[in-house]
Amino acid sequence: MKSYLGIDLGGTNVRVAKISEDGKILAQVKGPSYGQEGPAKVMANIKEMVRDIPGWKDCAGIGVGVPGPVDTKAGTMVLSTNLPGFAGYPFADEMSKEFGMPAFLDNDANVAALAEALVGAGKGLQYVFYTTISTGIGGCLVVDGKTVSGKHGFGGEVANIIIDRNRDKVNYLNVGAIENEASGTGLKRKYEQLSGERIAHTGVVFDRALAGDEIAKKVKAEYEKDLGQYFATIACVCDPDIFILGGGMMKSADKFLPGVIEQYKAMSHTAVHDTPFVLAGLEEPGIIGAAMLPVSHGL
Amino acid sequence: MKSYLGIDLGGTNVRVAKISEDGKILAQVKGPSYGQEGPAKVMANIKEMVRDIPGWKDCAGIGVGVPGPVDTKAGTMVLSTNLPGFAGYPFADEMSKEFGMPAFLDNDANVAALAEALVGAGKGLQYVFYTTISTGIGGCLVVDGKTVSGKHGFGGEVANIIIDRNRDKVNYLNVGAIENEASGTGLKRKYEQLSGERIAHTGVVFDRALAGDEIAKKVKAEYEKDLGQYFATIACVCDPDIFILGGGMMKSADKFLPGVIEQYKAMSHTAVHDTPFVLAGLEEPGIIGAAMLPVSHGL
Repeated sequence: MKSYLGIDLGGTNVRVAKISEDGKILAQVKGPSYGQEGPAKVMANIKEMVRDIPGWKDCAGIGVGVPGPVDTKAGTMVLSTNLPGFAGYPFADEMSKEFGMPAFLDNDANVAALAEALVGAGKGLQYVFYTTISTGIGGCLVVDGKTVSGKHGFGGEVANIIIDRNRDKVNYLNVGAIENEASGTGLKRKYEQLSGERIAHTGVVFDRALAGDEIAKKVKAEYEKDLGQYFATIACVCDPDIFILGGGMMKSADKFLPGVIEQYKAMSHTAVHDTPFVLAGLEEPGIIGAAMLPVSHGL
Repeated sequence: MKSYLGIDLGGTNVRVAKISEDGKILAQVKGPSYGQEGPAKVMANIKEMVRDIPGWKDCAGIGVGVPGPVDTKAGTMVLSTNLPGFAGYPFADEMSKEFGMPAFLDNDANVAALAEALVGAGKGLQYVFYTTISTGIGGCLVVDGKTVSGKHGFGGEVANIIIDRNRDKVNYLNVGAIENEASGTGLKRKYEQLSGERIAHTGVVFDRALAGDEIAKKVKAEYEKDLGQYFATIACVCDPDIFILGGGMMKSADKFLPGVIEQYKAMSHTAVHDTPFVLAGLEEPGIIGAAMLPVSHGL
């Protein structure tokens, strides 16, 4: 069975793993990424970690997941807020030359989507749409086992989709952007604003709604409608075979997902009502998805 | 050079053509489709038309464009409002058996998109998003030269995307659906409602806005913002290499497209501001795109 090198690079930590084509982690090394110290240090560290992986030479290719949009054709980051100095840096080229095998770069949400599409809940399906909801909201369409990263690496940068124009301006995102309205951060902010009370986490909103708290019920209802509209919009664009949902908010999925699906149905054609909403199942989608990048390029 | 048979089937008329792989019409037959008389009559008529095409036997495959969503894997229509009896009818299979070559079926907006992607304004680009705006609004994402038709054939059925929740309920579509707000029909309806006056066509709104009519200016501004938001949403989902625009409203493109692009930029990340908005250039995208279906399947 073929194997691939996956690298999951963040601003703080980095993981390198050898992964089989069916998504099993065969060997793994973790450590600090030295992300604030610039490309020279970061790259030297990663190269050393690769050489610590037993049998790395047997791998058929390298995939790297990074935080932020990527120019997948050039193999470079477009923006690198969490990895200073990496915007435009020839990341994939350098890895490819160093290790003598093809190397590919993509956004971390996109590689998580790819993992789910190739060896997770979307295995064997042609059109997979992955959404991750935690402090932010990200997503990615995977078609025929390849991420739709787009011209500028902004494919699946769904955070800024306007869900309702008539909301408050929160930050640099659009007024009514789905991330501000339906991320965990957004849900907490809206409940705190309306109740005038600080809460520990978003689970409180769902619990209080269940207990009959009118403000919590209102915030929860809007949350479900916002997300339902988001998925209905995605269905209009690409009508996926499956919606896969990941991210920290899914710990409370049983509390709000039925309401989201109900709203999705209310805003979409009956033909697409049977599209399944499935929770992401892989324990390590970031590192597995990175290793799947060469697979998605036919290696 | 290879050639393909394209069939552009409507409720009233049908065209059959032999088309070269670079999109030139080599031979063509037109006639009534007998669309209201059921599949037996429609299919017999099409078969006769194919045999009237000189050299049809030299073609490498058949593509058919039909009005309404299509199950592209099964080669059947999902809904057939304009072609009674065709929902679920084994259209592609029957054509394939009759003529001894592979046959494919897709939605007419999708095949127009495919034509533009393969031999029109989007030639050579990986991610093409086509939008047609006339009495209705349709669209299609084309990735790697293949239409993203989706699980139920609803990929690109963008008409129902909600652009603003706080609008009037117009018809069976969602409140604030882009088709009701930004199609030609929608623009005309909104101006007539506000002015209390019937107008001959949508061009009147743009002319009056230019002449300083306050109502026309308001309706035009909202129109541009609605469409700008629509394109910004599409960019968040798939970040296309190009937006290609077709449909009757493009006759007035010089009057409103600059405003749409300005709004698009106001609602999207600077990285995607350079995405070109290009008018569809092919004279016969329906029939050419149908013939491109076999090409998109590697024939």
